[in-house]
Amino acid sequence: MTVDEPSADRRRAVTEPGFECWGVYSRDCATRRTLARIADKWTILIVGRLSQRACRFGELRRSIEGISSKVLTEHLRDLEADGLIFRTVEPTSPPSVTYELTDLGVSLGRLAISVKDWAEEHADAIHRRPT
Amino acid sequence: MTVDEPSADRRRAVTEPGFECWGVYSRDCATRRTLARIADKWTILIVGRLSQRACRFGELRRSIEGISSKVLTEHLRDLEADGLIFRTVEPTSPPSVTYELTDLGVSLGRLAISVKDWAEEHADAIHRRPT
Repeated sequence: MTVDEPSADRRRAVTEPGFECWGVYSRDCATRRTLARIADKWTILIVGRLSQRACRFGELRRSIEGISSKVLTEHLRDLEADGLIFRTVEPTSPPSVTYELTDLGVSLGRLAISVKDWAEEHADAIHRRPT
Repeated sequence: MTVDEPSADRRRAVTEPGFECWGVYSRDCATRRTLARIADKWTILIVGRLSQRACRFGELRRSIEGISSKVLTEHLRDLEADGLIFRTVEPTSPPSVTYELTDLGVSLGRLAISVKDWAEEHADAIHRRPT
């Protein structure tokens, strides 16, 4: 028996055209794409920061060591397209843009903090192992 | 003020040689490397499967659609080196190798299931947005 053997219906849903696949273990499922988006260190770091408070671009870039402007820009654009963050533009000169989590983003923020906390709590156990 | 402004001590810890940096927001910190390891879709999928039960290589490969043998091999090797999984080899012919979570891996397994569940619960909200 394979792991978590799918039912006949689930198998059909995954393999036959006209049936939508479902679940992160299915290659072509939308949930797999969502998993790939959130299981990403930059997403976790950005959403973790924004779960503390709204931030401007420069604040995010300075507070996430090692992120490039290009990578930050791409991630902010994707997170906005996915409805996880929104931007507010103040008509100053130059315009001041603030990024903030949507309700869906706040939910992801809680998960991001759990992932961050796990890494910080257990890195020691992982990295002190004999090699 | 920048986000989560570090204390003078923390700033020194991050920037001066001889002081270990700390925290996932610091580029060179071990916790950042741990975050990169766990914030990875294949890690989440593999550890999620192994949190259901011990599996052999072929079972894992078949039950995680789209993963290549090469990627699965690399991830299993890294997870073993990090003390998150262990292998049991039965002296059959050919030898039968089973992968299982360690206690640390079980802890990561709970997180992996949370990430998987979030993706499955919210993919619809993300992917049905107008583009």
